[in-house]
Amino acid sequence: MTAGTLYGVGLGPGDPDLMTVKAYRLISGAQVVAYPAPDDGESFARSIAAAIIPPSAREIPIVVPMRVERFPAQAVYTRAAEEIGEVLASGTDVVALCEGDPFFYGSFMYLFERLSQRFPCEIVPGVTSLTACAARLARPLTARNDVLTVIPGPLPDEEITARIEAAGAIAIMKVGRHLPRLRRLIEGLGLIDHAGYVERATLPAEKAMPLADVTEAAAPYFSMILIYKGDEAWMLPPQSSS
Amino acid sequence: MTAGTLYGVGLGPGDPDLMTVKAYRLISGAQVVAYPAPDDGESFARSIAAAIIPPSAREIPIVVPMRVERFPAQAVYTRAAEEIGEVLASGTDVVALCEGDPFFYGSFMYLFERLSQRFPCEIVPGVTSLTACAARLARPLTARNDVLTVIPGPLPDEEITARIEAAGAIAIMKVGRHLPRLRRLIEGLGLIDHAGYVERATLPAEKAMPLADVTEAAAPYFSMILIYKGDEAWMLPPQSSS
Repeated sequence: MTAGTLYGVGLGPGDPDLMTVKAYRLISGAQVVAYPAPDDGESFARSIAAAIIPPSAREIPIVVPMRVERFPAQAVYTRAAEEIGEVLASGTDVVALCEGDPFFYGSFMYLFERLSQRFPCEIVPGVTSLTACAARLARPLTARNDVLTVIPGPLPDEEITARIEAAGAIAIMKVGRHLPRLRRLIEGLGLIDHAGYVERATLPAEKAMPLADVTEAAAPYFSMILIYKGDEAWMLPPQSSS
Repeated sequence: MTAGTLYGVGLGPGDPDLMTVKAYRLISGAQVVAYPAPDDGESFARSIAAAIIPPSAREIPIVVPMRVERFPAQAVYTRAAEEIGEVLASGTDVVALCEGDPFFYGSFMYLFERLSQRFPCEIVPGVTSLTACAARLARPLTARNDVLTVIPGPLPDEEITARIEAAGAIAIMKVGRHLPRLRRLIEGLGLIDHAGYVERATLPAEKAMPLADVTEAAAPYFSMILIYKGDEAWMLPPQSSS
């Protein structure tokens, strides 16, 4: 018997219309879908694809504690990989739903590292939050020979400062509770007027604004700061976009 | 009269199935499309969307000399912006086709900076070559709290070396004729076995392989080197993927 294929499918940043045509087709035709889910609420990945998951599809939620400190929950992924592996071994494909892109800070790698040596695996890239946030701020992310550095917000002050100083274009991911600290660092570097803030990009609850206008003490996990040191014409305020 | 909207539409890395649903819909319904084109061949952007551009659509090719040194051809974009501006002023939308993502090292910014202050402008983000290449190498690009640095290949040796040394995950764009030099630098850093090479990602002529196996003296413009210093399990050879 031919084993099924594990598809790691990027869903894009949140707006279902930003799914790729390939993702749309794979999910619409899926017999089995798997996705990460928090232990106390809705799966973000599933919510992006909800309208096109066939009602008959078997769903395998991978319930992981959402506290960053304990992530990844290795045992949870090992168990999920066993369940998914049984489906694949029976000859059925599994479509793993991934927010953004499967290989860009994604939890899909925990399935991938457990299953890709044993089963055919295909990665379907997706639109990342990186370019979605730039689009929503209506500011180019990078141009010409810019160096872009992507920095996780939880890193320590000194490292974040050094990396901002060294690059022309900067994206800080996973802002969350680090928002006031990051804002202070960026202000200290004299770059506050070069920084934009986006949370929940492309979703109905989206916020996109100059970082200087952000007053909240904390941001959701899905939030980002973009800094561009170059061209004044690209600076804030952002253009309006529909 | 209401002005038309300028849509900057990301087409993804090359496979038309990696267009977003939104891009697909906008292009299929377009009355006017614009795209960059070389002075001696087919437009890559147009080729990605070719099957869905309505035969009745007016096409505005922006013919730019492809020699990197002379890019951007400011006069060409100024003239194109005038032509597109007239269409927008007449109340008709214009769909600008962009390889990858419009704001990720894209030439769309030359239209954007000329038109976005005068007309409504919406950016539709696309799948970048960055995650498409990671998908085709079947290796995660970044995970956990990795810092990712994206480096244009034309930068000088010292800068490239310093930036590779400073990051955990590295993407080198625009490899082209810099391939032998970049390979030498990466070898010198002892990272050759951590590096993957991709050209024409997701297209029929794609090549994706360990950098150590690349023997060519030059690469096409659309080529990339990915380096990941971490997890041995993610190292080469890449998994097969269909």
